[in-house]
Amino acid sequence: MNKRQYMQKSFERQRLQNKLLAEEGPYPFVVILDHLKVDFNIGKIIRSAEAFGARAVDVVGTQFFDPLPAKGCMKRVAWTMTKTFFESYDRWSRDGYAFYAFSADAPLALHEVAFPDKAAFVLGNEGSGLSFPKEHYPALNYIRIPQLGQVESLNVAVAASIVMYEFARSRNFSRPGESLGD
Amino acid sequence: MNKRQYMQKSFERQRLQNKLLAEEGPYPFVVILDHLKVDFNIGKIIRSAEAFGARAVDVVGTQFFDPLPAKGCMKRVAWTMTKTFFESYDRWSRDGYAFYAFSADAPLALHEVAFPDKAAFVLGNEGSGLSFPKEHYPALNYIRIPQLGQVESLNVAVAASIVMYEFARSRNFSRPGESLGD
Repeated sequence: MNKRQYMQKSFERQRLQNKLLAEEGPYPFVVILDHLKVDFNIGKIIRSAEAFGARAVDVVGTQFFDPLPAKGCMKRVAWTMTKTFFESYDRWSRDGYAFYAFSADAPLALHEVAFPDKAAFVLGNEGSGLSFPKEHYPALNYIRIPQLGQVESLNVAVAASIVMYEFARSRNFSRPGESLGD
Repeated sequence: MNKRQYMQKSFERQRLQNKLLAEEGPYPFVVILDHLKVDFNIGKIIRSAEAFGARAVDVVGTQFFDPLPAKGCMKRVAWTMTKTFFESYDRWSRDGYAFYAFSADAPLALHEVAFPDKAAFVLGNEGSGLSFPKEHYPALNYIRIPQLGQVESLNVAVAASIVMYEFARSRNFSRPGESLGD
């Protein structure tokens, strides 16, 4: 069995365990991963999703991915697989989620966003970015993670983690209900 | 030439280019990487250090590392190699830096810290954590990145990136001098 086959087998096993064990996180935000590579970023993002209380991670257009970087979180975090961005958009927008995607030239910076009750964060492929033209989804909001370097490019797992951190920060890292003292 | 040898050769070449080209980032913080693994986290952290304007990255106790995940930032970011944490501590503390390390049970949360003029962030090995006992460096401040998951553990490159993001955020992402209108 080569490395890819092993990765695939391990993925299938953990996917089954996930169906039995996964629970939605405490915060009403989802992370939509638009056609990411199979190697390590998806697992890393699932690990951060556990840490920052994401309701779910929607893996769009990727058939399988390496479960190892998720460090055991693949069983617990609610993640789903969706074939196309349109299906994912349709599902979460029916459920009342507002969409945010990232663009280096967006005027609005992440830390200035007043997040709504339900937020969906869309992150594109490591090389090619989003799988769709912006004009197909006019309801998407574009925001940027402010940066000072010569190249405006963070690793996608780092960008996704910072976005989740910022959402949890905006809720003061307290579980829904906690801040009212109950 | 095997993969490790190739990595090492590419590392040495980029290290030389770095000596010619690197410039300190605009913000007075440094990231000290205490005995991290050779594979991908150090390069990723250097990439984020460029994005968030770190003065320097000090790679402690690691002989070489994979330059690929740094995506070209290895030439530009000022990074140094130091043999032991003691040497690194000695160097940056003489220069007036206050030290912050991370601990899941620290009472102070990252976003509540009023960062001083010069801050040094210490991140430990992926498996074994910091290379020294806490009591050897009583001047170190311990802080935590608040998390909601069952396991308090972010990937080290994600944790380092969030810390740098938070420092830049505390300075409103403006270059020193910019905020005064000059």
